[in-house]
Amino acid sequence: MKVAIIGAGRVAWNLAPALQQSGVEVVEVWSKSRSSAEALAHRLGCPFMWGALDVVTCEADLYVIAVKDAVLQDVIRQLHPGRERALMAHTAGSMPLALFADAGHERGGVFYPMQTFSKEREVDFSQVHFFIEASRREDEASLMSLALSLNDNEDFVHRSTSATRRQLHLAAVFACNFTNHCCALADGLLTDAGLDFQVLLPLVEETVAKLHQLPPAEAQTGPAARRDENVMGLQRAMLANRPDLQRIYTLLSSSIMNLERVKN
Amino acid sequence: MKVAIIGAGRVAWNLAPALQQSGVEVVEVWSKSRSSAEALAHRLGCPFMWGALDVVTCEADLYVIAVKDAVLQDVIRQLHPGRERALMAHTAGSMPLALFADAGHERGGVFYPMQTFSKEREVDFSQVHFFIEASRREDEASLMSLALSLNDNEDFVHRSTSATRRQLHLAAVFACNFTNHCCALADGLLTDAGLDFQVLLPLVEETVAKLHQLPPAEAQTGPAARRDENVMGLQRAMLANRPDLQRIYTLLSSSIMNLERVKN
Repeated sequence: MKVAIIGAGRVAWNLAPALQQSGVEVVEVWSKSRSSAEALAHRLGCPFMWGALDVVTCEADLYVIAVKDAVLQDVIRQLHPGRERALMAHTAGSMPLALFADAGHERGGVFYPMQTFSKEREVDFSQVHFFIEASRREDEASLMSLALSLNDNEDFVHRSTSATRRQLHLAAVFACNFTNHCCALADGLLTDAGLDFQVLLPLVEETVAKLHQLPPAEAQTGPAARRDENVMGLQRAMLANRPDLQRIYTLLSSSIMNLERVKN
Repeated sequence: MKVAIIGAGRVAWNLAPALQQSGVEVVEVWSKSRSSAEALAHRLGCPFMWGALDVVTCEADLYVIAVKDAVLQDVIRQLHPGRERALMAHTAGSMPLALFADAGHERGGVFYPMQTFSKEREVDFSQVHFFIEASRREDEASLMSLALSLNDNEDFVHRSTSATRRQLHLAAVFACNFTNHCCALADGLLTDAGLDFQVLLPLVEETVAKLHQLPPAEAQTGPAARRDENVMGLQRAMLANRPDLQRIYTLLSSSIMNLERVKN
């Protein structure tokens, strides 16, 4: 299978080498920026193109489109002419399969690896869940096989509708992006006290390790979970000069107390 | 060293057996509730008392006070008479050392294990940071030794003022309690879609694993980090029937965008 990689951001940076290692032939990388395309192509040892999309190869069997959600619709529209018969699959959590039909492209698909990707860190694909969707049954089967070539654990490769995937992505924003941001805020508070975020890492790790054993609502600890108004008042007061953090503190503490109330 | 454990909640449940295994003699457990005291004493194979605090043994060298922050001051006051010469140490992150002096007790200390404890799960003390403080230098040395007997890695045993510890605890609320709650909210969103929280676990784990390599502000991904108004608008709309979650979504997304702005 000849695959062209459209995009050279965090997702493509991790996904393309994994596809290549699984035996797929990556025939070309495209990115809007020359330097990004070149860097990923160098990593893969394959040709690269940049700039307008009409320069992209027409020879691929599959176009994996890993670009920002905001430009995805435009990229599909521009890629379609001359590649009408190819399978194209995007990698976005929140974008519907219908984007392809809207652009007049019949063989559309979704290949969503639910993970947080960075260029600085190699992702272990055996721990990545894939959510697959396609307009045609045979394309769905191809994308399922492709996912299984990256992660042979069938429990990690799912068929999913656009509606379910969108909900998954929303949940992922809470469980990944918001948790990471809470850690970033904690980091800032520690820096203010001359402390290093490293001292918090075992606590964050234990918080996550617990989730293998207990549902998160059961595992909840802390002043809000025990309705300790004394400590909550003290901590809110400590944030008097950071009204932005104080608002977050108050809102999340109330939300914890609400959930505890529903639980009991 | 003879130690009495005052309290039989999550902290005592984990700390008391670890102290015992490190060679300390746990002479008694006390809890307000008979059943809690009995359960922990059974775990330790030691006597137990319950109800009023005047029944507690007067023979201990150290009283480890692991009770709710809200009742800590009262517990110290009630424990003091008849035990004036003993060392007493509380385990609370946000409570000052001065509570002991306020109660007229001279040999006060703090023995704060910064971890999230549950009765359902045994904590690995080699991954627990301890923050120690005491009114008297020799008591501080004893508590430092005691912490080192639970975790012999000196990088995990710290002297700390009440002010620094309070700031640490506030940071821990963000990094542990709030991250766990974000996972609980994600769990709810998945349940609504007929999905299991287990599919999100690899994502949450990778989010935390990254923090060994990148500071959390650098590791931030997601729609807010890339200022993707399209996806943020879509996701806020998906939460239209959950105004509580919508408020959290909006506030945390703005906070991520603010931090990205400061970063760049």
